[in-house]
Amino acid sequence: MFGTKDHLRAEGGHLTIDGVDVVDLAEVFGTPLYVTSERRLRENARAYREAFAEADVYFAVKANGNLAILRILAEEGLGADVFSAGELSLVRMAGIPGEKILFNGNSKRTEELEMAVEAKVRVSADSLDEVSALSEVASEMGEVAEVAFRVNPDVSAKTHPKIATGLKTSKFGIPWQEIVEVYRIAMGLEGVKPVGLHCHIGSQILDVSPFVDAAAKMMDLAAQIVEAGGEIEMMDFGGGLGIAYTPDTLAPTPSELAAGITPIFQEGCRRLGISPRMILEPGRSIVADSTLLVTSVNVVKRAHVNFVGVDAGFNLLARPMLYDAYHHAVVANKMDREDEEKYTVVGPICESGDVLARDRDLPKVERGDVVAILDAGAYGFSMASVYNGQPRCPEVLVSGGGAELIRRGEDESALLAGQVVPARLLR
Amino acid sequence: MFGTKDHLRAEGGHLTIDGVDVVDLAEVFGTPLYVTSERRLRENARAYREAFAEADVYFAVKANGNLAILRILAEEGLGADVFSAGELSLVRMAGIPGEKILFNGNSKRTEELEMAVEAKVRVSADSLDEVSALSEVASEMGEVAEVAFRVNPDVSAKTHPKIATGLKTSKFGIPWQEIVEVYRIAMGLEGVKPVGLHCHIGSQILDVSPFVDAAAKMMDLAAQIVEAGGEIEMMDFGGGLGIAYTPDTLAPTPSELAAGITPIFQEGCRRLGISPRMILEPGRSIVADSTLLVTSVNVVKRAHVNFVGVDAGFNLLARPMLYDAYHHAVVANKMDREDEEKYTVVGPICESGDVLARDRDLPKVERGDVVAILDAGAYGFSMASVYNGQPRCPEVLVSGGGAELIRRGEDESALLAGQVVPARLLR
Ligand SMILES: Cc1ncc(COP(=O)(O)O)c(C=O)c1O
Ligand SMILES: Cc1ncc(COP(=O)(O)O)c(C=O)c1O
Repeated sequence: MFGTKDHLRAEGGHLTIDGVDVVDLAEVFGTPLYVTSERRLRENARAYREAFAEADVYFAVKANGNLAILRILAEEGLGADVFSAGELSLVRMAGIPGEKILFNGNSKRTEELEMAVEAKVRVSADSLDEVSALSEVASEMGEVAEVAFRVNPDVSAKTHPKIATGLKTSKFGIPWQEIVEVYRIAMGLEGVKPVGLHCHIGSQILDVSPFVDAAAKMMDLAAQIVEAGGEIEMMDFGGGLGIAYTPDTLAPTPSELAAGITPIFQEGCRRLGISPRMILEPGRSIVADSTLLVTSVNVVKRAHVNFVGVDAGFNLLARPMLYDAYHHAVVANKMDREDEEKYTVVGPICESGDVLARDRDLPKVERGDVVAILDAGAYGFSMASVYNGQPRCPEVLVSGGGAELIRRGEDESALLAGQVVPARLLR
Repeated sequence: MFGTKDHLRAEGGHLTIDGVDVVDLAEVFGTPLYVTSERRLRENARAYREAFAEADVYFAVKANGNLAILRILAEEGLGADVFSAGELSLVRMAGIPGEKILFNGNSKRTEELEMAVEAKVRVSADSLDEVSALSEVASEMGEVAEVAFRVNPDVSAKTHPKIATGLKTSKFGIPWQEIVEVYRIAMGLEGVKPVGLHCHIGSQILDVSPFVDAAAKMMDLAAQIVEAGGEIEMMDFGGGLGIAYTPDTLAPTPSELAAGITPIFQEGCRRLGISPRMILEPGRSIVADSTLLVTSVNVVKRAHVNFVGVDAGFNLLARPMLYDAYHHAVVANKMDREDEEKYTVVGPICESGDVLARDRDLPKVERGDVVAILDAGAYGFSMASVYNGQPRCPEVLVSGGGAELIRRGEDESALLAGQVVPARLLR
């Protein structure tokens, strides 16, 4: 019923996650609710660690910034790709050591560069301008910052344009034609030590071949750098592996990805006589399928189509609105019913785009039913807002047959956070 | 230089807002920073109050939920359109009385219906299912809830599909063909008292004619309802008036809108012998142009195009990413320079879609420059998230030549809000 997702089952007419009844969870914790399977999370991390036994796997924290989840991934030996000072703080709190962190980003503030240098975390520089800034910052602090270079490999990743990040028109990275020159300039700068290359060609990529193309291009660039006298201690091939959001999608596994790129990496290294660390930066493929977004039906409206109004919208899961993304939806309390009709599941937000699931066959839906949205663990809560005055919901972790709160839900007071009304306006 | 926006000026090479130097504001409060002109806000509110002297103007809180801003609008006599319990709390705190509030929304939780009844706030019902729920809730509380009906008028509003809300395919409202029947059913229900009709055909509409069409359709429906024995105490024609985001856009004024719809309303009422209140629900046209998003340049990268990396992205202003929306951008510390080049201004967020301003002529940009994004007061901060570990920025209010903090910026601890790490994961 759920493809490879064996943490999800239908039992006695209810959806369960690792044996825990999702309808009970909705009852106890309220809705909307994010629910994560610890087992599935660990399995996903282990699949990467096994497929890339010789490489370092850095979790892309942007996909999910929950501390309990980061702790679990840290326990599984993962490092972290961070995109800001805030993410760096989070992963340090989760216990990930500085040497297993890469500070990414295309537009870093000076304080962020300082923080990276202070924490002795490697920086991926997105431009020559940034390398100069890093050089200044580190020199002033009397430090030498290890820096990798984000390459724009101009590889097409066959994904949604907003998340294809390796095209030459994208804002990310240094054009591959310029990378050797930038590396050379950086080698002459104080306070920075060039240590390698980094790329990330996009997200939700369902085909191994663009990764192979990018890896080959990256190894070519490494060869040119070595020839120019540069040192290569790390090669980061990014994240981007897709997952099966629809029941009939076939997503490549981490070991299929490894089979595609590891030989290219190893052969390149052998040829060049270098032995850098290989790094991967998966986000989505580690967390997405571990997590459900559970939401209650407020209203059913038979209009042009049958609308199901639930209590979660793009305030909590922006992907359908942002990328027309598909998330599978089931009625958690009616898993054995066959009286299906077509429904469109919409959120409570004041925009026509606030549609979670369009034209789906669902058993007859009524007010009070519980709808579970699958594969919500990546770019779900991490993109949440309080738009339309909707406080953010809690997150729970399911393991050992029980469920623990890993983030308390906000109440309306969250909307007041930081607000100051000048005295003259109070009257 | 700024069209009708006379609160913005270039003085001594710097951008000023009501005479206050924006570069100074960036210096004192840091960036990113939202800056609102109190004068402009009051002018916008007054323009509506004058144009619609006989009507009630309800500010659509979803556009901006800052309490100080809501206080100012309350002082100007505006009521509020709220979309959730959270928004209702906010406007009550801002001192807007229950009789000047309409509780909108297409998917309200039972507790929200209870809250509306408790606060004696009129509810706009989006479906028959919801009217039944409201009837149950109010009856149980021994109250009678005044209810208006959101009509889907099936009027094309010539705007971005995600914010066109009055098409028959949109999730909002009761199809106009069914409204009389729903009204009739509701008249027979306990605990609810039907008091009128409501529509909202979309947002950022630059032409008065769809408003006129919708008003005419609404008055036709009112006539049918009166004929069927129903009472009409209010007619809410929604918000949606567009503003001039680009320098060469001509946006209709509130008085042009009034000239289009007030005669239709008045004539219809005269014909039917009824005297309901007319209500408007503008959001954008009240707040958008009062506010700048001020951001600093972290990096300039000459790649395929010239990228300017700033410290605000779609985490703080989602409109360009969501709707390909245009926001005018200027370099606040280089207002007198003419050495223009083409630049694309991008944020610090890890998505290719995180572009604030594409292909703009700007004076030569350098690290440290201050960029002001115009017209950021509506659907700006209210849609903000902490995605990519970016805490939300402060807001300040400019008035009387000074500036006051009206929301404190968050720091990294905001990312930890509510987080709970189970003991066994702490070790
Ligand atoms: C630099 C970088 N690394 C890693 C990732 C994670 O990608 P994914 O979640 O597709 O694995 C992203 C996502 O946008 C990214 O920008
Ligand atoms: C019901 C309703 N009323 C009013 C508004 C405010 O619209 P605007 O900001 O375009 O004036 C909206 C915006 O989406 C809305 O959904």
